[in-house]
Amino acid sequence: MSQIERVAIVGGTHGNELTGVYLVKKFQQYPNLINRPSLETLALLGNPKAIAEGKRYIDKDLNRCFSNENLQNPNLLKYEDTRAKEIKQILQPQNQPFTDVIIDLHSTTANMGLSLIFCDLHPFLLRLAAYLSSINPLVKVCINPQSKEGGFLRSLCELGFVIEVGAVAQNVLNAELFEKTEQLIYAILDYFESCNQGNIPQTNNHVTFYQYLGTIDYPRDEGGKIQAMIHPQLQFRDYEPLNPGEPIFLSFAGKDILYEGVSTVYPIFINEAAYYEKGVAMHLTQKHQKIV
Amino acid sequence: MSQIERVAIVGGTHGNELTGVYLVKKFQQYPNLINRPSLETLALLGNPKAIAEGKRYIDKDLNRCFSNENLQNPNLLKYEDTRAKEIKQILQPQNQPFTDVIIDLHSTTANMGLSLIFCDLHPFLLRLAAYLSSINPLVKVCINPQSKEGGFLRSLCELGFVIEVGAVAQNVLNAELFEKTEQLIYAILDYFESCNQGNIPQTNNHVTFYQYLGTIDYPRDEGGKIQAMIHPQLQFRDYEPLNPGEPIFLSFAGKDILYEGVSTVYPIFINEAAYYEKGVAMHLTQKHQKIV
Repeated sequence: MSQIERVAIVGGTHGNELTGVYLVKKFQQYPNLINRPSLETLALLGNPKAIAEGKRYIDKDLNRCFSNENLQNPNLLKYEDTRAKEIKQILQPQNQPFTDVIIDLHSTTANMGLSLIFCDLHPFLLRLAAYLSSINPLVKVCINPQSKEGGFLRSLCELGFVIEVGAVAQNVLNAELFEKTEQLIYAILDYFESCNQGNIPQTNNHVTFYQYLGTIDYPRDEGGKIQAMIHPQLQFRDYEPLNPGEPIFLSFAGKDILYEGVSTVYPIFINEAAYYEKGVAMHLTQKHQKIV
Repeated sequence: MSQIERVAIVGGTHGNELTGVYLVKKFQQYPNLINRPSLETLALLGNPKAIAEGKRYIDKDLNRCFSNENLQNPNLLKYEDTRAKEIKQILQPQNQPFTDVIIDLHSTTANMGLSLIFCDLHPFLLRLAAYLSSINPLVKVCINPQSKEGGFLRSLCELGFVIEVGAVAQNVLNAELFEKTEQLIYAILDYFESCNQGNIPQTNNHVTFYQYLGTIDYPRDEGGKIQAMIHPQLQFRDYEPLNPGEPIFLSFAGKDILYEGVSTVYPIFINEAAYYEKGVAMHLTQKHQKIV
């Protein structure tokens, strides 16, 4: 692994996810908090217009606008299309290499603790994750390979990833999660600094990760209207096993709807507010361990 | 007290508060759930356009549009101004008296459990509250006399009140709170039915209530930008005592900010997402007991 010289921390890619917005504002005010002797860190607000309006986005989800196809299409002129192109330019100033790392800060109404979301099983990121989860059990690791084509900001560079924190409501600051996310970011930057110095921190020799399998939508009628809610027994139980035959939804009429899969899965993003419109009640994952 | 013949249950006065929206849709589909032998109940969606867009409101907060002044001003033509006038008409069809009761269903990101918000110490409502809190300890009672001039929907009739449930994120359905709110509504309607039959249910002879004192805003800079978050020790502690000298905010720099009042208060609506724009970090109340 070569040196990590430039890191970008992006907050407010979704304008109503305030943890990242206010962390980035803090880092912009006190840049010494995020610089390290061997690396320079840029703190950037992703979607300033959506932040000002307290909305996820203005015209379309910015965190679906970073595919090569989108970025190279001059006819896409919605606010987020333009902003995605701007962000790409900011992350690669003229005559400089692209930023080495993107840390994209998100929050969720699901009970995701401090989740790291990677595009793939990159060995450097897995060692980082093994280290972070060894010092803080709230840290979880998800692999979502969809990200490559999905137009996610994190897919712009090899070492791009998301920190997803929750449960926290949209447009709300939760001080405890704010501070935990802040400490996690410092631990990550310190880890990079140590690696740059040739001292890779001692760590577990394995990491537990949750591999994306697919999504489940809410039960809906022919008109697309939802007919059931996340079951109370599943609400806030992200990363816990869901077995075939266990309740997954509760209909408005009060009837249990059971999980009909054939094997145990580990749901995450359970009841994320922004995913109702995407037809996603939760993500299903498989739990794995890997030697790092 | 004369008979209660007509009740209106309104959900989605704020379009992103889904508990009320989906309860009203259920009641519209199964009206027998909310009718009783001696009384007729109307289930009404408050702000259909905001519900469709998943927003609190389109142009302005509908639940501030019901003052007499507003309702009588033909020059106020924003969507919510017009909708407020429509709702008033729906609640008083031609040649009929105004609905006897309005139950306005709201939800909040604050940990308010099942809160009843009344405009004043109406003896009938206090007896109802004494009964409801005796059968369910999650029921709390708040008196907010501001409501009379504030243009709140509940102020349209003598027996108008709010059910405020939380903590739940905006644009999220929480099945447990949905079911608890549903059961509370049935208990209220059954109580009305019993009263109409001359059998007022047995109850506690006293009720605890929280009387509105005022609001506290977040610490802000000259530009109006917030400088601190609700302190982790206060978050989700609605209805618990806050004493002078106890932490109330945590600055982004990590500094505790203490409550500087002179006596114990009981904060509610702590960290309600929709109140950031209103300059309200929480309401302060005083705790009282009253014989009913």
